[in-house]
Amino acid sequence: MITRKKILCLCLASALALFAPLGFAQDAWNNDWQRSSTNMPGQEYPRINSERRAQFRIKAPEAKDVSVSIGKPLTVTKDDGVWTITTSPLDVGFHFYRVFVDGANVADPATEIFRGGGGGGLSSAIEVPTGEDFHELKDVPHGELRERRYFSKVTQDWRRIFVYTPPDYDGSPAARFPVLYLQHGGGEDERGWAMQGRVSQIMDNLIAENKVQPMLIVMERGYALKPGEEPIPMRPPQPSDPGSNAAPQPPRDYNRIFATLAEVFTKDLLPLIDRTYRTKADRDHRAMAGLSMGGMQTRTIALAHLDLFSHIGVFSGGTIDPTNVGHVAALKEQAKLVFISYGSHEVDRPNPLRPGAPNPREHVEALRQAGVNVVYYVSPESAHEWHTWRRSLREFAPLLFRN
Amino acid sequence: MITRKKILCLCLASALALFAPLGFAQDAWNNDWQRSSTNMPGQEYPRINSERRAQFRIKAPEAKDVSVSIGKPLTVTKDDGVWTITTSPLDVGFHFYRVFVDGANVADPATEIFRGGGGGGLSSAIEVPTGEDFHELKDVPHGELRERRYFSKVTQDWRRIFVYTPPDYDGSPAARFPVLYLQHGGGEDERGWAMQGRVSQIMDNLIAENKVQPMLIVMERGYALKPGEEPIPMRPPQPSDPGSNAAPQPPRDYNRIFATLAEVFTKDLLPLIDRTYRTKADRDHRAMAGLSMGGMQTRTIALAHLDLFSHIGVFSGGTIDPTNVGHVAALKEQAKLVFISYGSHEVDRPNPLRPGAPNPREHVEALRQAGVNVVYYVSPESAHEWHTWRRSLREFAPLLFRN
Repeated sequence: MITRKKILCLCLASALALFAPLGFAQDAWNNDWQRSSTNMPGQEYPRINSERRAQFRIKAPEAKDVSVSIGKPLTVTKDDGVWTITTSPLDVGFHFYRVFVDGANVADPATEIFRGGGGGGLSSAIEVPTGEDFHELKDVPHGELRERRYFSKVTQDWRRIFVYTPPDYDGSPAARFPVLYLQHGGGEDERGWAMQGRVSQIMDNLIAENKVQPMLIVMERGYALKPGEEPIPMRPPQPSDPGSNAAPQPPRDYNRIFATLAEVFTKDLLPLIDRTYRTKADRDHRAMAGLSMGGMQTRTIALAHLDLFSHIGVFSGGTIDPTNVGHVAALKEQAKLVFISYGSHEVDRPNPLRPGAPNPREHVEALRQAGVNVVYYVSPESAHEWHTWRRSLREFAPLLFRN
Repeated sequence: MITRKKILCLCLASALALFAPLGFAQDAWNNDWQRSSTNMPGQEYPRINSERRAQFRIKAPEAKDVSVSIGKPLTVTKDDGVWTITTSPLDVGFHFYRVFVDGANVADPATEIFRGGGGGGLSSAIEVPTGEDFHELKDVPHGELRERRYFSKVTQDWRRIFVYTPPDYDGSPAARFPVLYLQHGGGEDERGWAMQGRVSQIMDNLIAENKVQPMLIVMERGYALKPGEEPIPMRPPQPSDPGSNAAPQPPRDYNRIFATLAEVFTKDLLPLIDRTYRTKADRDHRAMAGLSMGGMQTRTIALAHLDLFSHIGVFSGGTIDPTNVGHVAALKEQAKLVFISYGSHEVDRPNPLRPGAPNPREHVEALRQAGVNVVYYVSPESAHEWHTWRRSLREFAPLLFRN
């Protein structure tokens, strides 16, 4: 029997169904939202739910269109001048984003702001919980992150570095420490490993668990130009680019691209660190690593200076060509460790830009067979993103300075 | 004789004049623009000219309205989707700003981002050149800025501090140093003095000129709540507010508002600093200062703990009531220095919210006559802004720890 009350209910339900694409779509999502750990104090948005959807809220009463740069498709609603944007489920970990308001590409002041995310500027970011706590602040002894300025004779400008010192650095005035030089990626800067990389938390935790040798970590800026020098593009247009009509390009000459940075390292930075901090100032106690562009810098600078570096880490920054006989012989002879890592999403599908390119695992296997001490790590279910690089540091650091 | 060419010229001139309010208004301005020193690498905007106008450029093709939150009136033009906004002449120094795109209040990713500027979030900022270089990075020995985390037993959470250590701190392992505790303003955080305050540059320069005693500077977070504690509003509505119908309010009880922060200082922070760094751990070698809200915190915490602090600096944070006999007697007896400062624009006109309020100079004179060692500084041609507070530190620091 259909009562008047039931009819009213049905009508209401129909009305609600009509509105679903606008205001009620959130009923389809798990309603267990938690604020992103990157949020500024008091900010409830952006927030993440257990499906790993992110939800953003932007007040823009006069705007015609508001969107965010991560997670597609987006569900966008507007209510009383406030836009709510919900993404599809995301990978876990740290993601940069920008907000687009009627075509303006801006940062969302609701979150901490990070340098990176493309374009060389500043971006907002969210953290999708990883279920792992190796990068969280814990109740363990904490080291310091020290900001220092120095004048580079090579570039003739002031440069800023960050130096992680382990918890017992000041308390053990007679002790000397090995040093890892750790480089950020393209578009980021010397803050990258401290802010998005959480280097202090990762190292404090590893040291507390007695899994690593206490070490200094030096984080430089991955850009260096002499007065009047023009930067060499990292990646000119390639004939294999979709829609490209570029002429075939010679292989990128990283030695040339990173020549000035290499000079900064050898002439300015290493001497500065060894005279300023209580280091073990020899190649056996010096490592270099980096992510993406920083990994390319590591391959270039450390390979050309095996007299200065004995341990090498390349995170999502390419591999070492096993057919380069000179490199392989030098690494076999002099490198105590070569560490190559990727996010699984980077290597578990063919590279669309270079069909037929070898899987890094094949390179690593060939290097190992040639007698190089190489360790290969693939971060599960992660992409060319910080979750891969935080995990890479967690895997790499314990292997350093062991003999 | 009017030639055809001249007629053409006149017509063109008239046509240009018609367009002046839209695209050609910049002809009226000095065309000697320089990028703001706060800009991210490669960003030409915002820029400043010799009239101290600021000019902003925002690409927002679909937007109906774009503006910025500093400098009125604004001249706004739109050309090919790019908005150019030019301000009236500004005060020299550091200014926070936000961008408004069709009602959305966002940060401009073209500049470094700073915490502050109202609302507790992040803002962009420009620097209008001051013609002074005491806050610039110079070729002098540089100290370090150290980031440290510690667990507060009072608030039961992890707190972050920054500690400036002078250039010779690590190199003089037997030396011990006095300590200045230096607080940021409302809406800012423990980064404020390092980022917008340029504390390292100011101190490095003063030390190089042998104008100050080398000292540690500890920068804490001006917010502290115990678990479950609700914050007490700094400033409830006042009957003297324009359009207010608020009931008369009792005087603000800063002892109550800052009670938890005072506990953090005395129970957690001071012991942490004295056991972690090589300090001169007595009241004679301990100072506290702060700006605006941080000045109120300084008055409250240091006045209640003259057993711990001997030097007090209050920058744009009010004065000390000379009719409070207990305070005056304690300061006369125990304070080696009371420093009160303001920007001239804060004190050179009557306070519209408190007509008849005494000029701070009168308070200072009364304190001096009562026997308190008080120094009063008014920063010329500056407001309740960072130029006042950078200068205040420059004036205050040389007076510290002299006897």
